[in-house]
Amino acid sequence: MIEPRLVKAGSMSVAADDYTDLSGFFAPRAVALVGATDDTTRFGGRVLHQMLAFGGTVRVLPVNPGRSTVQGLPCYPSVTELPETPDHVGIIVPANKVMPVLEESHARGVRFATVFTGGYTETGTAHGREMQEALRKFARETGMRLMGPNCNGFINFVDGFAMTATNAVPATRPPAGNIGVVGQSGGLGQVAVMWRAQQAGLAISYQVSCGNCADLDPLDYARFMIEGDATEVVLLALESIPDGAKFIRTAEIAAAREKPLVIIKFGRSERGIRAAASHTGAMTGADEVYDAAFRQFGLIRVEDTRELYEMAVALRGKRWPRGRRAAMVTQSGGVVVQMSDSGDDLGFKWADYTEQTQARIAAIIPGYGKVANPTDLTSVVSGKMTLFSEALAAITADANVDVVIPVFTMARRAELDHAAALALASPKPVIPLWMGGCRDDPSYDVASMVRSGVAAYRDTQACMKGVQAATRYREFLAARRPRATATRPPDCDESKARAVIAQARATTLSERAAKQVLAAYGLPVTAERLARNAAEAVQYAREIGMPVALKIESADIPHKTEAGAIRLGLRSDEDVQRAFGEVIDAAHRYRAEATIDGVLVQQMAPPGVELILGLTTNPAFGLVLAAGIGGVLVEALHDVAYRIPPLDRDEAHAMLRELRAYALLEGVRGQKRRDIDAIADCIVRLSWLAIDLGDRIAEVDVNPIISFEHGACVVDALLVKR
Amino acid sequence: MIEPRLVKAGSMSVAADDYTDLSGFFAPRAVALVGATDDTTRFGGRVLHQMLAFGGTVRVLPVNPGRSTVQGLPCYPSVTELPETPDHVGIIVPANKVMPVLEESHARGVRFATVFTGGYTETGTAHGREMQEALRKFARETGMRLMGPNCNGFINFVDGFAMTATNAVPATRPPAGNIGVVGQSGGLGQVAVMWRAQQAGLAISYQVSCGNCADLDPLDYARFMIEGDATEVVLLALESIPDGAKFIRTAEIAAAREKPLVIIKFGRSERGIRAAASHTGAMTGADEVYDAAFRQFGLIRVEDTRELYEMAVALRGKRWPRGRRAAMVTQSGGVVVQMSDSGDDLGFKWADYTEQTQARIAAIIPGYGKVANPTDLTSVVSGKMTLFSEALAAITADANVDVVIPVFTMARRAELDHAAALALASPKPVIPLWMGGCRDDPSYDVASMVRSGVAAYRDTQACMKGVQAATRYREFLAARRPRATATRPPDCDESKARAVIAQARATTLSERAAKQVLAAYGLPVTAERLARNAAEAVQYAREIGMPVALKIESADIPHKTEAGAIRLGLRSDEDVQRAFGEVIDAAHRYRAEATIDGVLVQQMAPPGVELILGLTTNPAFGLVLAAGIGGVLVEALHDVAYRIPPLDRDEAHAMLRELRAYALLEGVRGQKRRDIDAIADCIVRLSWLAIDLGDRIAEVDVNPIISFEHGACVVDALLVKR
Repeated sequence: MIEPRLVKAGSMSVAADDYTDLSGFFAPRAVALVGATDDTTRFGGRVLHQMLAFGGTVRVLPVNPGRSTVQGLPCYPSVTELPETPDHVGIIVPANKVMPVLEESHARGVRFATVFTGGYTETGTAHGREMQEALRKFARETGMRLMGPNCNGFINFVDGFAMTATNAVPATRPPAGNIGVVGQSGGLGQVAVMWRAQQAGLAISYQVSCGNCADLDPLDYARFMIEGDATEVVLLALESIPDGAKFIRTAEIAAAREKPLVIIKFGRSERGIRAAASHTGAMTGADEVYDAAFRQFGLIRVEDTRELYEMAVALRGKRWPRGRRAAMVTQSGGVVVQMSDSGDDLGFKWADYTEQTQARIAAIIPGYGKVANPTDLTSVVSGKMTLFSEALAAITADANVDVVIPVFTMARRAELDHAAALALASPKPVIPLWMGGCRDDPSYDVASMVRSGVAAYRDTQACMKGVQAATRYREFLAARRPRATATRPPDCDESKARAVIAQARATTLSERAAKQVLAAYGLPVTAERLARNAAEAVQYAREIGMPVALKIESADIPHKTEAGAIRLGLRSDEDVQRAFGEVIDAAHRYRAEATIDGVLVQQMAPPGVELILGLTTNPAFGLVLAAGIGGVLVEALHDVAYRIPPLDRDEAHAMLRELRAYALLEGVRGQKRRDIDAIADCIVRLSWLAIDLGDRIAEVDVNPIISFEHGACVVDALLVKR
Repeated sequence: MIEPRLVKAGSMSVAADDYTDLSGFFAPRAVALVGATDDTTRFGGRVLHQMLAFGGTVRVLPVNPGRSTVQGLPCYPSVTELPETPDHVGIIVPANKVMPVLEESHARGVRFATVFTGGYTETGTAHGREMQEALRKFARETGMRLMGPNCNGFINFVDGFAMTATNAVPATRPPAGNIGVVGQSGGLGQVAVMWRAQQAGLAISYQVSCGNCADLDPLDYARFMIEGDATEVVLLALESIPDGAKFIRTAEIAAAREKPLVIIKFGRSERGIRAAASHTGAMTGADEVYDAAFRQFGLIRVEDTRELYEMAVALRGKRWPRGRRAAMVTQSGGVVVQMSDSGDDLGFKWADYTEQTQARIAAIIPGYGKVANPTDLTSVVSGKMTLFSEALAAITADANVDVVIPVFTMARRAELDHAAALALASPKPVIPLWMGGCRDDPSYDVASMVRSGVAAYRDTQACMKGVQAATRYREFLAARRPRATATRPPDCDESKARAVIAQARATTLSERAAKQVLAAYGLPVTAERLARNAAEAVQYAREIGMPVALKIESADIPHKTEAGAIRLGLRSDEDVQRAFGEVIDAAHRYRAEATIDGVLVQQMAPPGVELILGLTTNPAFGLVLAAGIGGVLVEALHDVAYRIPPLDRDEAHAMLRELRAYALLEGVRGQKRRDIDAIADCIVRLSWLAIDLGDRIAEVDVNPIISFEHGACVVDALLVKR
């Protein structure tokens, strides 16, 4: 059950699911094309030509005033005068005429429109932004859903309908497949992804080049593909993800249906963007947050459009390796060496074959001896192709093996066909890597094998990355817990936390108040009391236990160290008495007009491993949780992990394990292991603080929290109100 | 001039250059093939068939007792009975008959042989190793040079001669090119590199699959290619580099001739191999050392056989970008976004176009406004192809631009031809990225463009990596200083260092002795004196200046901390007096029989950034220098950089900049910048210690050396004798 609090959470927009079924958009019964012309060198001519050449059963209604026919079809002067109401209107008219066409279409009862016309936000002008905002408003007010503006449309291979000017569709329409492609750009999505994927033997269900996204955005098209039966994998090439909540919802639906989303996210140079006030804040590059969110919600991120479709090769058949135990069998010793490295790098374990497999191979190839993995059969099977096939079948049947990679260099058609047949019949993934050509059928290539449905690769790295993606996707599915099932840990006192924040006068809470908020959510903080005079300070120091620290408490002095208004390691009454006066004096010198609440008498935490935890506001995801080890490491090495709240304990542990300096928590140089579970608990609690008080909090910086052999303790903290 | 000391240096084998000209090997006037048969399904039949099919003018002499002709050629019973002395003998006979054939060939005056036969070290048996050792000895003693055993031979496209059983040569012999390929494996080198490179439009000069390397090793074949005029780039696929000195010599000759070596090094799992006694030692994975050596000597390392030949696309024309200022011009906005990221990642600066270029583009495309880079001409030039070509020419002529990347998706032949012609004519590198197909000539593809000599790519990542490799190679050439010109810094007292090492009784020198060796090479060490009694300790402490540390000095107690025989921060005579007794007592308790030389009274170094420097012995390269920042970082993050000695100051700085935690030296969190030059000087001096005393030193561990705002100081050190 969804915790009701989750819905009001944070700064992340969590509007109810406003999904519109786009069936009528992608497969209209009738479509109007406003701006259709005869001249196929012009955009309106090309789109119509492509639509007609693509075939399908959609009734096409060209609209162009002053013509009676266009490209052999009856042409109509306006949408109003069409003989029937189309489901979808394509618009290729000057930008200033787009809105009248949309209004006319709405009046006629049209539900979907695609605006190809450019001149909107992509111009970078105020006028362009205003015009695009008008489109957005129109869509919100009328309920009509719009693709574009400044887009290159879409192709529906499933039903046979295209509305696009692309040159990337071959003369003969390729068959429909189960791979969806969504991108903003035309050239990239239609050529570098779709056309290239088809060249590589893959088949596409739907392709979308959606341009500026005034209304419908890439996640809407992806959702349509996920909801339908035709698509099993969606490839996303995105420049931005404006709505984090929608992103998470889409990802969770895809995961529930076991439909992998593969994503390339452009604009990584955004990572230059840095928040300011806190240490973890300064480390929050937007790209790292995207990266963490992709991993957290099961998306497979790639760095190149080529990898986008190469991943689909291994994923589209949805045969997930049950574990990381791979087997590889080849006739080239050099390949074995290369693959061993690659497997190590990508986290595979080369399986130990069972006794039974060893016996089967011994029977197939007498005198071969103990069979290693990766398996080199070279000198033994050379010239005896059936032996290779038999050994491959034995290895594929091995219970210790989760995924099989038969490797070929120059190969004969018969052995390739055997491997392909095995791959198609086996419930266990069999993923051939074929680096060379076919000796007795030169026209048969890797693309041919892919076309037949096999997850075949031509390159080692691509193959291993594909196997890795399939393996990790299964691991994600096995471990995933939908957000709706997340539960708050005990002793999270939201009203107390709210009260502390409400009482604070300044935007930035004092250290003591910030720690009170954290304590309300169960984070362990240093024992501390606010002393109004030296006598109180001495008394509190005795109660807390020496040594203690004294720190000025003033909302006007956020940087206490800079002010010199801190004294550490005070071990006696006299020390505390003297330090009280010094701290007050330093504060006055630093800022004469500061309102001083008193002096904080604080327990000195024993030494341990220092960590930084934080919450920072991300434009898409609201409050994002950050964790790093060692203040110096966080700054010098940018060693920070991110998650979208809420987290459970396992996810918090996974987050810590991502840190390069994780070994410091496990104990290096003879140091004892730290209480990692205590830190994980703090992370979980901080994540729920973000969920519950996201409406009040802009930023939290827990710096440092010290990790002991037993337990942990927040030594300093900062909280900035929203 | 080569410093004479360099030649006697270290554990690295530095035999004089024993290069043999392999012209007669690769292009014999006459070749004998022992074991030639008619049956082309057998190895001996395949090699002969391939040799004859390949053409060329070499006189082929089959040898097979009991046959008069083989494959239409006269056949001879033995090498002895051949009508002429061949330059090269190929041997395909059972392993036990190989040696007699070699002896016979040597008696006949043959200079080169290729042993295809297997059954040697690759079997993993003692017998196999012995047989291979016999081949090695035979070659050393006779001066005959051998390829193999267990190899698949070679192909010489330049002179038209092949001696190999591969299936990877097409029916029509491909033309010769300027790319050499050297590997141990047949399948990998001949299929995954050579055949694939040819498919991608590249042409090969020589290809070698040299198997077990009893005598000639990959560097010998590479050297032949580097020395000749036919080859401009050598692609190396290697499993091991047995001889570091030979590797460096080969790399230096290649660099002197501006011939890039691109390398894939297998067996990275070797990195598990770890030396033991010291901290940096424990960090010395062999693969990291290879990686450092490759960079230091200008090799371009890749991770996949595909990248091997893809690099050659950008390198073979030897048009080096003069700097990192790239320009990109395209008609797809999506491509611009993707490329911007990729350029950022790979360290490019997108050039600012000159006023003149801006004016030229304004003239070509009126109303376009200020032209950004990467340059998106989409909406403006659509349908007007000459405009794109003219803009591309203007950008290529821009003085601010070092390398130009025109990007195409679906393109017309005319615009592709224009870019190709521009690329071939321009002295500045123009490297087209063509992601799609040719609209009006579907048979024309990226391979066609590569075949015409253009450095064209199909994939973004491959393209950018190629551009990066060419850029870095020029940077390497500009910065490189041959080892022969390296000069020792002043105040390196070799005889003093030798004397200290010679005096040491144990294999591991005491801290004091190790620091004396370092001091002899000009490294600053803590002031310290050895006290025999408490009174001396007090006197020395006064002289050195308090605070001081006291440490037991005993060759029997290398781990002083473990023994509890260290006292730090002693500030008074009484402290020193008491500590002296405590240290002696602790040492006796720890090891009653230990011989105690006294107690070291040592200056306490002020706080600073801790570094670790070290020398460790690598099987190929002898003493290798390692540097890391922060003991904890070295261990937890493996943040270590390596170099082969000697280093100059610039290289030492470059080494430090490689460290992820380098920012600690530059000052983070308001810390002052450290005296990085002082640390670099210590690295240079330590590297010369390795050069001069490599015959006496197995390992040095300088841990820590502390870096101050001014200067540096070695606080502790360990030296293990060879």
